[in-house]
Parts: sequence; C-alpha cells; structure tokens
Amino acid sequence: MTIPKTQYGFVYTQANGLNLKEDIPVVEPGSDEVLLKIDAVGLCHSDLHVIYDGLAVGDNYVMGHEIAGTIVKTGSKVTLFKDNDRVAAVGPNPCGDCTTCRTGFENDCPHSAGKWFGLGVDGGYQQYLLVKRPRNLVKIPDNVDSADAAAITDAVLTPYHALKLAGVRPSSNVLFFGAGGLGVNAIQIAKAFGATVTVIDKKEKALDVAKSLGADAYYTKIPEDVEAGSFDVAIDLVGIQATFDECQKYVKPKGVIVPVGLGAARLSFDLGDLALREINILGSFWGTATDLKESFELASQGKVKPKVREAPLRELPEWIIKLKNGEYEGRVVFRP
Amino acid sequence: MTIPKTQYGFVYTQANGLNLKEDIPVVEPGSDEVLLKIDAVGLCHSDLHVIYDGLAVGDNYVMGHEIAGTIVKTGSKVTLFKDNDRVAAVGPNPCGDCTTCRTGFENDCPHSAGKWFGLGVDGGYQQYLLVKRPRNLVKIPDNVDSADAAAITDAVLTPYHALKLAGVRPSSNVLFFGAGGLGVNAIQIAKAFGATVTVIDKKEKALDVAKSLGADAYYTKIPEDVEAGSFDVAIDLVGIQATFDECQKYVKPKGVIVPVGLGAARLSFDLGDLALREINILGSFWGTATDLKESFELASQGKVKPKVREAPLRELPEWIIKLKNGEYEGRVVFRP
Amino acid sequence: MTIPKTQYGFVYTQANGLNLKEDIPVVEPGSDEVLLKIDAVGLCHSDLHVIYDGLAVGDNYVMGHEIAGTIVKTGSKVTLFKDNDRVAAVGPNPCGDCTTCRTGFENDCPHSAGKWFGLGVDGGYQQYLLVKRPRNLVKIPDNVDSADAAAITDAVLTPYHALKLAGVRPSSNVLFFGAGGLGVNAIQIAKAFGATVTVIDKKEKALDVAKSLGADAYYTKIPEDVEAGSFDVAIDLVGIQATFDECQKYVKPKGVIVPVGLGAARLSFDLGDLALREINILGSFWGTATDLKESFELASQGKVKPKVREAPLRELPEWIIKLKNGEYEGRVVFRP
Amino acid sequence: MTIPKTQYGFVYTQANGLNLKEDIPVVEPGSDEVLLKIDAVGLCHSDLHVIYDGLAVGDNYVMGHEIAGTIVKTGSKVTLFKDNDRVAAVGPNPCGDCTTCRTGFENDCPHSAGKWFGLGVDGGYQQYLLVKRPRNLVKIPDNVDSADAAAITDAVLTPYHALKLAGVRPSSNVLFFGAGGLGVNAIQIAKAFGATVTVIDKKEKALDVAKSLGADAYYTKIPEDVEAGSFDVAIDLVGIQATFDECQKYVKPKGVIVPVGLGAARLSFDLGDLALREINILGSFWGTATDLKESFELASQGKVKPKVREAPLRELPEWIIKLKNGEYEGRVVFRP
Repeated sequence: MTIPKTQYGFVYTQANGLNLKEDIPVVEPGSDEVLLKIDAVGLCHSDLHVIYDGLAVGDNYVMGHEIAGTIVKTGSKVTLFKDNDRVAAVGPNPCGDCTTCRTGFENDCPHSAGKWFGLGVDGGYQQYLLVKRPRNLVKIPDNVDSADAAAITDAVLTPYHALKLAGVRPSSNVLFFGAGGLGVNAIQIAKAFGATVTVIDKKEKALDVAKSLGADAYYTKIPEDVEAGSFDVAIDLVGIQATFDECQKYVKPKGVIVPVGLGAARLSFDLGDLALREINILGSFWGTATDLKESFELASQGKVKPKVREAPLRELPEWIIKLKNGEYEGRVVFRP
Repeated sequence: MTIPKTQYGFVYTQANGLNLKEDIPVVEPGSDEVLLKIDAVGLCHSDLHVIYDGLAVGDNYVMGHEIAGTIVKTGSKVTLFKDNDRVAAVGPNPCGDCTTCRTGFENDCPHSAGKWFGLGVDGGYQQYLLVKRPRNLVKIPDNVDSADAAAITDAVLTPYHALKLAGVRPSSNVLFFGAGGLGVNAIQIAKAFGATVTVIDKKEKALDVAKSLGADAYYTKIPEDVEAGSFDVAIDLVGIQATFDECQKYVKPKGVIVPVGLGAARLSFDLGDLALREINILGSFWGTATDLKESFELASQGKVKPKVREAPLRELPEWIIKLKNGEYEGRVVFRP
Repeated sequence: MTIPKTQYGFVYTQANGLNLKEDIPVVEPGSDEVLLKIDAVGLCHSDLHVIYDGLAVGDNYVMGHEIAGTIVKTGSKVTLFKDNDRVAAVGPNPCGDCTTCRTGFENDCPHSAGKWFGLGVDGGYQQYLLVKRPRNLVKIPDNVDSADAAAITDAVLTPYHALKLAGVRPSSNVLFFGAGGLGVNAIQIAKAFGATVTVIDKKEKALDVAKSLGADAYYTKIPEDVEAGSFDVAIDLVGIQATFDECQKYVKPKGVIVPVGLGAARLSFDLGDLALREINILGSFWGTATDLKESFELASQGKVKPKVREAPLRELPEWIIKLKNGEYEGRVVFRP
Repeated sequence: MTIPKTQYGFVYTQANGLNLKEDIPVVEPGSDEVLLKIDAVGLCHSDLHVIYDGLAVGDNYVMGHEIAGTIVKTGSKVTLFKDNDRVAAVGPNPCGDCTTCRTGFENDCPHSAGKWFGLGVDGGYQQYLLVKRPRNLVKIPDNVDSADAAAITDAVLTPYHALKLAGVRPSSNVLFFGAGGLGVNAIQIAKAFGATVTVIDKKEKALDVAKSLGADAYYTKIPEDVEAGSFDVAIDLVGIQATFDECQKYVKPKGVIVPVGLGAARLSFDLGDLALREINILGSFWGTATDLKESFELASQGKVKPKVREAPLRELPEWIIKLKNGEYEGRVVFRP
C-alpha cells in the first residue's frame, strides 16, 4: 500500500471553526507508534457542542472521535498490533500511567482530559491518523464491520459503561429517559444484561423503535399508576432538569441515577430525599478499553446492533447541519 | 423496680408543637416487646427542623430520637434481651422484613420512613418507652456511659455510616466541611479509619477542636495552594450550595461526595464535570444496627468520644431555645 | 376450609431414619405465625445425605426442604401475608436479627445453621407446616405453578445465588462442571445474565440438554485447544477433586471458583497458583429471600424453567430409592 | 556522575545457582527507558525458594527483587521521572497493556508472570539496573530512607495488598498466623486500618514484638476460650495445613482467608463448611504500583516501620545462608 505524504481532513480551530484542509501531512510513525488508515468515523452531538456551543477542548486539531481503521504502518517496538489489523480507537485516549488509569478508571484520566481523540487532539476526520499510544486501540471482531465499529466506540460504549457502572443485573428494573442515538443502543445493552426496561421518550416514533428492540414498557410520559420509588436504576440520556427530577422521584431507596445526557449545564436534586432514601448519583463518561472490548463482544454476538448510515467524508459539513437540525436518525458514519 | 402507670414527657403535635404532658401512660409490653426505662436522651438539630421548620414526620408523638436506656420489662417471647440490659435505640427503627432491610440497607427502610424513633413515632423525651421491635435495640458496652451512648446513636452513627459508605481507608484523603456537632465525631472516626483529614469551618474555635482531635489540616477556607481535584472523599456536614460546590471542585476523578448536612432544600452540581470526572454523590442517612454496634465498639476502644453535657429532661424547652440560638456547643443529653 | 387435627408425614430420626407417621398434630398458629398447607414439596440429594450418609442436622423432625404451599391460617399480628396467599419457604430459615442476617447474608445465619426447613426442623413432607417466622416465606408469582415453585426454592435458588455471588455479567465467560439437577437451571440462569457458557458433563445426554438450554459450548471433557486461564468464573456443581482441579486450571487471573456440589468432604488447591494468579474460592450456600424473589421473577419471565415431575407424597420412600439409584432425571415434586 | 561500563552483581542460572559476576555490562537506556543506580536491595525468602527449592522463574538473570535506587540516566521520551529521582521498583513489573492490568489488577499480569524484577528478569543484586518500563517505578517519599524503601517493596507491600484485598476496616477482627518478616509489618498495617489484631506465633519472642507493635492479643496457640467463628479475616503468613485449618475454623460466616505464606505446595479446606458458612479464600500476590504508593505513604506518616539491617552487597552469599538457617530476624538490605 502506498501511503501519501499529505491528505485531506477537517481541522477545528477556536477562531474559525471546522474547515476542510487539503494538505495535512501524513506523519511517519515512530518506533512505538502506529499509523492508522481511517476506514470509518462517526459524527456525534459532542461535535456540535464544540463547533456551536463553545465547548473548549483544545485548538487546531482534526476532529472526529468515533474512529475505526486499519493499521498500515507499525513502529518497530510495537508488539500489541501489526500491519493490517483492523482496530478502533479508545476515545478517552488515557495516559495509562497515572493512579486513575492504573486502578481501572482510565476513561477518567486527568492527564488526558480534553486531549481525547478528535476532541482536543487529532482524530478521525481525515484519511490517516498517527496513534502515539497503540494501547489505546482495540481490535474489531471479524464479524463487526468498520462503520458499526466506529459507532460502537461511542454510541454503544457510553451506555454500556453507564449500565456496567450502575450494576445492572437480571433483577434490575431500569428506567431510561431518551430513546435517541444512545438510547436505542442502551435498550439493547440493558436487555443483554437481562434487565427489565422502561423507556420514556416524547416521540411516539422513538417508542416504536424501543418496542422493536425489546423494551418491556415505553411511554411518552410515565403513567400515573407507576409508583414513585419503583426503579433500581435510572439512566438519564437527556439530562435536563425535568428528566432528572423524574429520575430522582422514580428510583427506589438506594437507587442509582446516571446522568449521561448533558442537556443542561447544571442539575439540582432534592437534598432531603437524596439523603433519606440514600439515592446515588453516579457520573459516567465514555468508557475504557476493556468496556470497548466487551461492547464489541456484544456486537459480535448480535446482542447490540447500532443503527448506522454511511456517507463520504467530504460531505461532513452538510451532515453537521442536518444533525443540528434533527433531520435524520441514527448515526452517520463517514468513509474517508 | 416499681414501674409507674403514668409518666411525664414531651409530646409533639403539628397543631401545637412540643408540650410537656404529665399523664402519659406507661404501656405494658406485649409478649414480643420490651419496656425501656430512658436513661439518657439527646437533643439534635433535627428536632428543631420538626418544631420550627415544619419538617412533617407524623403527629402526636413523644419526640427524642437519641435514646439510651435500661430494659425493665421483657416480653415472654423476647430472646434477644433480658431485664436490666442497657441498650440504645436504632433510630431508623426498620421493619426488618422488606427487601431494603434484608439486603443490608435497613436505615433506608421505606416502611419505616417518617416512623423513626422520636420522629414520627414515640421516642425518648419521656421516662419509659415501649419498644415494639426489640431487634431495633443494641447493647451498650459496659465502659460506655448512657449519656455518651445517647449521643453516639446519632452524632457518631451518622458520620460513621457516611464514612463507611464512602469507603474511607488509610490511603483516603478526606475533606470535611463543618466541625460542629457531627464534625467533631466525624474527624475522630476518619482518623480511626486511618485517613488523612482536612477540615474547613468558618469558626476559628472549631478549628482548634479539629486540631485537638487529630485533623491533619484545618482552615477557615481552603487555601489557594490546595489544588482542585485533591481529595478522594468530601463529606459536606453543612449542606449549602457554597460548601457543596467546593466539594465538587476539590474531589478527584472518581471522587465521592456525601452531603450529610441538610442546610439547603436543594443542591445543584456541574453536570459536565460530574460526568467527565465521574464524580459520585452518595446519599447517606443515619445508620444501621450494625453501624451502631461498630460505633459503640469505636467508643469502647476510646477511638471516638462525643462531647456531651447533661441536663434534667424537664429543662428541655429552654435547651431547645439555646440550641436554636447557637448558645452552646456539643451535645446536650437529658436524664429523665 | 376445614383443617384437620392430625395429618400424615415423614419424620426423620437419627435412630430410625425416615418413616411415615399418620398422626402428626396440625398445630394452631400463634399470633405471629402462619399455617401453611403444603401444595408441593421437592426431593433433593441433600435428603439422601441425611438419610444415608449421616449428615447430622437435628433429630426427630419432618423432612422436606423444597416447599410451596398456601396459607390457610394467619396469626392476628401477621401483616406480611394473608389467608390464601400462595408462598414458598426460604429454606435457610434465618433468624433475621443477627449481624449476619442484617448485613444481607441471611442464608449464612449462624443461629439457624442446621435448623433449616426440613433439615433440622420441620419441613414439607407433611400436609401442613407451622411457619414460626412468616418473613421466611416469599410469594409465588401467579404464572409459576406450585410444583415448579417448590423446585425453584433450591434447584434454581442455589445456582442463582452462586452466579450472583460470582458477579456474572454479559462479558463473563463461565465454565460449569455438571449439567444435572442444578446444572440445567444454572445454564438457563447464566444465559439470563448474558454470559457465555461452557458446560462439562461426562454424560452425552446431559450435553444434549445443555445445548437445548442455550449453552455456547458443551463437552464430556475440556478439549485440548481450550487454553488454561480462559474463564472468568468456574462453577463446580460436582465438587470432587478432579473437577475442582480443572476449575483452578481454567480460570483466569483474578478468576472466581464457586464449589457448589459437595461431592467430596475436602478439596485441595495449588497454593502457589492461587496466590500468584489471585484466584478466589467463594463458598456459596442456598440463597436469601431476595434471591428467591429474583429467582421467581426469572421463572415468571420464562427465563428459567425447572424440569419437574410430580408424584403423590405417599410414594416418597420409593422415589428416594430411585434417586439414590439414579433412575430418573430432573426433580420429583410431591403433592401431599 | 560517571557511570561505569561494567559492574558486579549476582547472576542466577538454573544450572549453577547464584554466582558473583564482575563484568556485567551497564546498559545505556533507550529513549523510553531509565538507568537506575541501586541504593538498596533486600533479601527475601522467595530468593531461597529459587536458589534451593527449584522454584523455576527464568534463567540467567541478576536476582534481587526488593529494589530502591536513584535514576542516573533518563531516556529522552521519559516524562514520568527525571535524573536524581529516588525510586523503588514495582516488583511484579506489569506489562500495563492487557485487560488484567487495565482493570486494576496489574500485579496479576499474565504477560509478566515469572518475569518479575529479580525473579525471572534482571533485578537489584547489582550496581545498576536498566528499567525498560519506567512506569513500574514509584517515587520514594523524602522521609523514607532507601533501605526501608527496599524492604517496603515486598515485606510491607505484600501484607498491605492482602489486607486491602480482605477489606479490613476498624470493625474488622483480624487473625494473623506468623509474626515474622511479613507479620511484623502486617500487624502495623492492620492497626493503621483501625482493626483489632490477634497474632499467633509459636515463638514467644515474636509475640513480644507483636505486642510492642500494638497487637491486641498474641498467643503461641489459640486459647480454648476463643470461640470458633470469631474473626472477620484470617491472614495466613505461614501457609501450612495446620495454620490454614485454624483459619477456616476461626473465621466467621462470610469470613475471608488470605493465604499469603507459601509453606505448603497444596492446602485443603473442609468443603461442607466452606459452602455452608460461605467462607472466601482469596489469593493475594505482592501488590500494585498504587499499593506501593500507599505503602510508602503509611511509612512516611510513621505508621509502618520495617525492621531493617544493612550489609554490603558482596556479603550476599553469607546472608543467604544465615537466612536459610534462621540466624537473624528482620530484613537484611544490601548497599551495592
């Protein structure tokens, strides 16, 4: 395979936003690095937060944080992978050396905060990506295609991690707010954990999807005959005060609330109720390499199937506008 | 011992507040009940919440929820205790039969919510208390006096439970807001767990106490050279937005915040930070029978010593006013 | 309903073994007790251990520890149940008051050791059972019949508890030794937890059943191409040295071995390997009331279906011999 | 500082055992490596196992696995450390990249098994050590001297890890067998965790030490009035059948046994008791980088002080014989 010297890609700067650039250098990997040919890269709401809402994570980098590719050049000291391995990137891109990483919480690595792939440092909206820490790649199973793999790195990994964190088991009664991009995968994952699943989404159409994915109950709003304190776990994929209040109301004593959606800057809780019923609010962020392996395993077993459509990478700008305007559903994944 | 037919005590009604009553019947215990002669009963801020702030937990009952006493009559089928046993009451007074109780979280028992001893159902501001579920009593060690025991049932038990919940260990760097009634015990407990302890309290005098109890650092406000993200655990014994915001700022990734003080009705958190750093907010309420046993054990070993003063029970009304006005420190415990 | 004064049943004495007795009194329940009409009671290998192997748990009691029935008389102070409730007994019959019980481990209650229903104190091989602690009953879901319910109290509950203890999740690779009475249920439960399941059983026929229940792999012995250190969890339903050695060999570092079958009096492990790879051996015994509720929920959802045949209770002696001789498969449940 | 081209050290080969070699090359560190000048290196029973008992971990390497030193040359890409940093080696020398490592269990890394520092690959019985993975070094606090630090990397780290694994807390009643090299540190650590400590050692003299270190009780054998089932945790630092049997007998239901000493090749347990009382046997091996940091923190706070004597490294052979013959107590640490 001939690797070009330069490539095109979409570079974000705080001053000028996201722009196509035609002459991005393709960098030769060092002895402990690999070069990844991007096969598929997904577009996500977090991209909009950076582009439109001023979410400040770094400057002057190639965006794109849902990355699947093929290794085309392997540094001489790299032992974990070899040329032609099909891999996906662990978005949080952890340092691997700090106490946070070494105690199993690498997705929370403080040294990599804001230096996540495609969110702070170079990501996948280009043809080739230099990966400085190959340990932050995970092999894609043979029966999972690259477009799905790209979507799995975030839209499956994020709810997978949240449900694992919440300790979901077959006896768990789980309440979801939001059956959108993450929600459709969250439902499938919760069913794979054996849980009983109730889904709340304002859109009737989203509920049809929830039903088809195995949700045990689905409503546009919680019916009056559902008692407060009925759920072991509430996953808030919307993250606004209205949904979060319902989460607190409807979880049991010792219940767990995981706010995954970032719909509001701040959320408040009823302190007396939180204390008296010992409610737990657990922060959850993306996922670890191990979580990603396990997410791929679920996909490989057919237990989770993300909803993905494909488009050429050069069409990225128009899809960003479509996503902003809510003009399509599911994940769009680009082939550079 | 002659047990009188009637007794005096302080009865709370929502209509008329707390009032002395001279002719409260002393009830004969049934076969599975015991009669407790009250030896000591503590006054607590929660009492003020009921009397002055309209905290609605039941109507027409004897208040007093920090209870130590001696069993003077034992139902024929009671096997756990016998006459003359010196015991303290497990405040949350759990049912013992529901799933919440049977999985170890009896302090959160939904069937006993608002039916806690002295907070919803009869408590200790009287001479004799009928205990319907003797399993909700715990033996007091011989070397712990009854006044201390009364204080331990709340002012030690509550922070003990919170610190246990937070998983405090010798490697834990713990931040406390508030070195008042609970705080002075919390510091001693945290030291017994081997932790490194930093205490923040606006009052210089409180810091002197914190120092004398072994706090490793103590400030009226967090110094500028203390880095954000430095603490494993933050225990907020104040529970207002200002202290809670500091808790969020100063805990590490994966850090734990336990809001114990109920200074505000609601508290808000920074959602993005909670998610990205996977902060955990854990509700904590009072404690279990096991926690109370363990708290007594700490006291028996001399590792925790609550600060207690004594007064005659008939002086309760004036001490309530003193507590409201902040006119004394430590715990006042009454001898009926 | 007319309740007779006497009944028939099978009483075990250490001197004379198990014998039919026709004039067992039906005892009137006290105010905090209930009388249960036995609808179904299962026969189990543990019965054989008592009758033939000298397993010493009490003397002079009605055997039968897998019990489903209907409440026919409810003590005046009992609030948890009412007449006509269809319920099953929590075999370990915990005291509910000790620290072991109150921290969630009621199946290990030291005060009830050897005083389990039908194993030490009266059980279900009779027409009516006096239940002194109604809290040790669990309601049977409407769509679970009593014969299944009886089998679930042990043959489902025991593996359910073991798998929950072992922390089985969708990412778990689980190895079972034995696809017999407990094994067939264990496989279904592990699949409900989302796990990948490998089953080893010497009998080809058992493997056919394992396959039909969803086992992912099934062998008469572990094939050579399965690598040592491949499984997260090994559940030994046989419990002899040969199977236990394989468990140790085939679990991963930090792997969990749960020896459920009691095929040997003692088992040994390779100490160096246990230490160096930090293998964990977890004792597992029967289950709690909560586990039984959850087991019923799985059955109610159709995720676990025990294999049960029915027989009249008076035929118990001949079925004991059949079980001893291995002349039938699945569970036999008696209708008194 | 001038770094020599060659050095002396003690090389182990399976054929010839441990021998002094005068011309071991001092290797120049690569860009991601560091060169460590050995300041102190401890002698341990594990060394004897290799030299005398045929414990097979690698061939032809410099032994010495309790290593403290100073970085004298830092590869250009190394960011974690710099020249003159005083550091200790994390003995298990984990790969850092596998799932075992990345989930927090790096001490069990299967890729580094038998390639531990000084046990399989080069260690500290030399003047300079090339460290290929600098992440497997931990900084030594200023107030901990290098000889103590060397001892801490094993004789403190190993019991620290075991006690952390066992979940020891102030309410824990802990039983130790063996108050020798590890035991003296284990006692101090358990007291730092707030536990109640009972020590069994055949030697009266060891018990005097145990007493001086704060043990709450100490016996040459368990007295008859100590009830079976009294301890939450039993740490077996001897690891022979006699001590292990006592561990099983004396732990409570749900009790934890950690066999740390490797006195026997195999140990057996009473299967019925393990199951019925749900006893847990937890393998424990050395410790992680985080555990080592925490061990150093305990030492820095004065809570643990290993008993160390110093000797010149060239005297290693005679000290090995003394250790084998039990001619001294505490740890001997060599200064190369």
